[in-house]
Amino acid sequence: MDFRSFFPIWNKLTAEEQNKIEGAITTRKVEKGTVLHDGSSDCTGLFLIKTGQLRAYILSEEGREVTIYRLFDRDVCLFSASCMMRSIQFDITIEAEKDTEVWVIPVKVYEGIMENSAPVANFTSELMASRLSEAMWLIEQILWKSLDKRVSAFLLEEAIIEESDKLKITHETIANHIGSHREVITRMLKYFQGEGMVKLSRGAIEITDKKKLQRLSD
Amino acid sequence: MDFRSFFPIWNKLTAEEQNKIEGAITTRKVEKGTVLHDGSSDCTGLFLIKTGQLRAYILSEEGREVTIYRLFDRDVCLFSASCMMRSIQFDITIEAEKDTEVWVIPVKVYEGIMENSAPVANFTSELMASRLSEAMWLIEQILWKSLDKRVSAFLLEEAIIEESDKLKITHETIANHIGSHREVITRMLKYFQGEGMVKLSRGAIEITDKKKLQRLSD
Repeated sequence: MDFRSFFPIWNKLTAEEQNKIEGAITTRKVEKGTVLHDGSSDCTGLFLIKTGQLRAYILSEEGREVTIYRLFDRDVCLFSASCMMRSIQFDITIEAEKDTEVWVIPVKVYEGIMENSAPVANFTSELMASRLSEAMWLIEQILWKSLDKRVSAFLLEEAIIEESDKLKITHETIANHIGSHREVITRMLKYFQGEGMVKLSRGAIEITDKKKLQRLSD
Repeated sequence: MDFRSFFPIWNKLTAEEQNKIEGAITTRKVEKGTVLHDGSSDCTGLFLIKTGQLRAYILSEEGREVTIYRLFDRDVCLFSASCMMRSIQFDITIEAEKDTEVWVIPVKVYEGIMENSAPVANFTSELMASRLSEAMWLIEQILWKSLDKRVSAFLLEEAIIEESDKLKITHETIANHIGSHREVITRMLKYFQGEGMVKLSRGAIEITDKKKLQRLSD
């Protein structure tokens, strides 16, 4: 469980670069619900996830949220270091969805290496491209998918992440993930329950007919 | 008007890399309306715009469009070469909005240089970051801005690009830019006309009260 085996392009770094990073990294343990990065102003450093789960989301002026992407073990979070790219002009918030442990690579160290290392620059570029792909997917979802499809797809994804059909999640949380309102989500879930696809209880949603939910989300 | 002065990081290339690119580039002239790149399947090469204007958009299964970004003189279009990044998993269409002339850098040549050149990899990464910023802006617009604000903002942007308050643009075209329907745009523009902000005529929209339109878009 050491950094060397977790950092995806460790073997492409020079010995000097490896030493620089190893001498600078720190670890950070946070509880579920902790905000690790808030907007573009602070420049916390790159996170490499050891264990846990992070959620990156944007906030409207009225405080509404929408999830842009989620990060799991071995993922690298670039936007907690967004100050290092002048072309990044949006504010993203990063929150722990589960108890999480991350390695933090200081911005100055990563930036210094990236400037001269083609492997690190290309790795960064691929990370950026995959976040862009997620943003494009989200645009398609918001514009062209109806809310019932989006809610059913979210529940199915959640069941995969949690490896359980019984999800401990509030209607408010779902609304924050998909950029909707709690009342709207509650109405939709009650409709799903009426159709026999889910069973609702306090703070939990159980998927009772996965196939039907899947047909709806397709 | 030669490639050297247009390519943003020309001076950061080695003499060998410069020769490789100069030996491989071609130019392409297209008329307004030409589709230069269609989805992720073909991998046309990187475009560097000499003169003209390109529009990058995505298409829904039903054929609805939404503009992701536009490119002008000296801009580099990366997604006509999206095959070179395995993390890009979306299909984008690139169309000339005006008569356009571009330099085309073949993918294999750019890719080969990028693999070993930190400046080229970092340049690519910055391009990707700026497209991501545009996608994030679009997500915020779609989720949190009402249609009247989006249409007014589009008209004001268009007036800046065209350097004229008399826009030759159809309602269908506006709908395709912002991911809406023609009927909805027509209704909105008629409302704007009723409020004295625009004057509608066949195939044209004249902005008659810019300040009022600006207040609406803010």
